[in-house]
Amino acid sequence: MTKKKIGIVLFNEFETLDVFGPVEMWGDLPDYQVFMVSQNGGLVKSAQGVETNATYSFDNAPQFDILMVPGGMGARREVNNSALLEFLRRQDKKTEWTTSVCTGSAILAKAGVLKGRRATSNKLAYEFATSQDRSVLWQGSARWVVDGKYVTSSGVSAGTDMALGLVEIIYNRQVAEKIAHETEYIWNDNAATDLFSVGKSD
Amino acid sequence: MTKKKIGIVLFNEFETLDVFGPVEMWGDLPDYQVFMVSQNGGLVKSAQGVETNATYSFDNAPQFDILMVPGGMGARREVNNSALLEFLRRQDKKTEWTTSVCTGSAILAKAGVLKGRRATSNKLAYEFATSQDRSVLWQGSARWVVDGKYVTSSGVSAGTDMALGLVEIIYNRQVAEKIAHETEYIWNDNAATDLFSVGKSD
Repeated sequence: MTKKKIGIVLFNEFETLDVFGPVEMWGDLPDYQVFMVSQNGGLVKSAQGVETNATYSFDNAPQFDILMVPGGMGARREVNNSALLEFLRRQDKKTEWTTSVCTGSAILAKAGVLKGRRATSNKLAYEFATSQDRSVLWQGSARWVVDGKYVTSSGVSAGTDMALGLVEIIYNRQVAEKIAHETEYIWNDNAATDLFSVGKSD
Repeated sequence: MTKKKIGIVLFNEFETLDVFGPVEMWGDLPDYQVFMVSQNGGLVKSAQGVETNATYSFDNAPQFDILMVPGGMGARREVNNSALLEFLRRQDKKTEWTTSVCTGSAILAKAGVLKGRRATSNKLAYEFATSQDRSVLWQGSARWVVDGKYVTSSGVSAGTDMALGLVEIIYNRQVAEKIAHETEYIWNDNAATDLFSVGKSD
């Protein structure tokens, strides 16, 4: 059987753990394979200086079943990258799940796919994120938020918790807990508990 | 001022988060730069299928101030890689800190650098790790262990906590907490608290 495809969107100065927390939690699922995609493919350097290989470019990428957009300093620039925004809109039409970590939701918002949806973002970049589209129902207190097929998480480490939350939805609680156990991960499993809350929601 | 060098050792089928949790926590320190090193340099694929670029090979790597060895399925093979073991012994002579995540400590033990030291490892691979060198004082219940310059952590996610623990030692508590806050990371900051304990120590 062909595995379903998870596409993680890379750009220069992406935040390292935004990407690799979810990769860890999704990377051993029996029915999914994780791929990296960037505008031109090839090596992409994270904000922490590590280079990861994107096997697909925007032009030759397949349709992904799960799309994930990370944040990081590069997101400040990428909200103005029309090639990226167009790629996200095109992919989003047929994804089963469209997800983000940190200010990845700012990029999704700018692409226009979160209109009228509940979503969250990094609490230290909250004004930046929410200003991309005021019609999004931004949640100021949430570790992660699920609204239909849109799953957005708070900053950096919250993405790892969101990734397991999505595993629980797609599979079940036991599968998510088994992954947490095997990675000795102490899952912050309550999406509503946010120790980094800015305490306001639209 | 030249930054100090953190060298992270990659090999095929390294565990993704073993590497990138510490990269996230160490990657923005003002006095350090993170480098990837592998036997031959170039792209190295993790157990979760993602390719990372090693900028150094064992032959052209500089002396690292902090050395970190991850675990993962590949560690089962790498304990028998004499080129890797020799590289670790050579580097270890002049490191300020020699560290590991998960079964990375099995490789360090096989290299012979942990003799008589207290150390820990992944609790799901505990027999594999401890069998590499019985003269190590293996700790069956610890999130991470510091003995002199040797800092070894338990499985996968424990490495992220260990990385912040080392930041606390090198800098101070505030610096570690600031990184945790900025990455919205809920730091499991007690090295002795181990929810995945096998409950025995040498």
